[in-house]
Amino acid sequence: METNNIANEATFSPSLLNADALLVHWQGHRRLTRKTIEAFPEEHFYTFSIGGMRTFAQLSMEIIGLTAPGIRGIAFGDWTFGEPALDYSTPAPPTKQEVLNLWDLVTEYIETLWPQISADRFQETEAAFGMYPNTILNTILYLIDNEIHHRAQGYVYLRALGVEPPAFWER
Amino acid sequence: METNNIANEATFSPSLLNADALLVHWQGHRRLTRKTIEAFPEEHFYTFSIGGMRTFAQLSMEIIGLTAPGIRGIAFGDWTFGEPALDYSTPAPPTKQEVLNLWDLVTEYIETLWPQISADRFQETEAAFGMYPNTILNTILYLIDNEIHHRAQGYVYLRALGVEPPAFWER
Repeated sequence: METNNIANEATFSPSLLNADALLVHWQGHRRLTRKTIEAFPEEHFYTFSIGGMRTFAQLSMEIIGLTAPGIRGIAFGDWTFGEPALDYSTPAPPTKQEVLNLWDLVTEYIETLWPQISADRFQETEAAFGMYPNTILNTILYLIDNEIHHRAQGYVYLRALGVEPPAFWER
Repeated sequence: METNNIANEATFSPSLLNADALLVHWQGHRRLTRKTIEAFPEEHFYTFSIGGMRTFAQLSMEIIGLTAPGIRGIAFGDWTFGEPALDYSTPAPPTKQEVLNLWDLVTEYIETLWPQISADRFQETEAAFGMYPNTILNTILYLIDNEIHHRAQGYVYLRALGVEPPAFWER
């Protein structure tokens, strides 16, 4: 998370995070969520829930279905994802391995698009998914926070199932 | 989260977040966690848990007991908090109102100390709490992520108790 050009930045409004560091932060969280999916017994991934909440398969698909069109919107302003069609309501494929394959596709897509995001883009205000006006930076932070939030719910499911979740601090 | 001096910052390493914006982000999450504590029925706050996990009183006290010495360490390098004595293992006081009072004390303390953090401080590497070497920025992000994580576990407890949690997107 170090930058090489601190001295060039205005000290009266110190900048803390650059685009490279934000990508590292996001992908670190994504690796931890992937481990959380892996930790689920196949059956419980699709069937277990608490208090009428969604299954972890559904929560994982929400993350996938927001992140795939999300990174396209972040980069290009086009908040859709076509191949395969993915949005927040896309149902989970029938095996955990297929969900993990979608996960990895999105991870690689983020890596591909990230360097194409212009420096000014992060401060632009735009309606994310055509619905939620915010700066692009805040939309990215929201996607990360939403993933941490749902992953933590998966941790409770795992504990309730007697399965040790992955260590939170290991990314 | 806008900055007024984007033009002064090096475009080859665009800076995304300044200290003011990070404070807004953190305090927004803290307001949501406070609402989550408020949503708990008094008794269940202290007694309810799932899968052998800690109660939400204990999780809330972990957040308080990390954040209070944490902000002192972030600002001054002294990772302790003395009045009242607070660390990660401080037990919860006997009423939810007293926990909320501690919460508010820490919120105000963050507001007081934040402007005293020097611009260079965020990129310094230091062992947080004497134990976890990281940049100060990463330690702050870790504290926020840890709070989101534990708060989300509280959301599952509330759902299991039939209580509607506060809206995640409202800060």
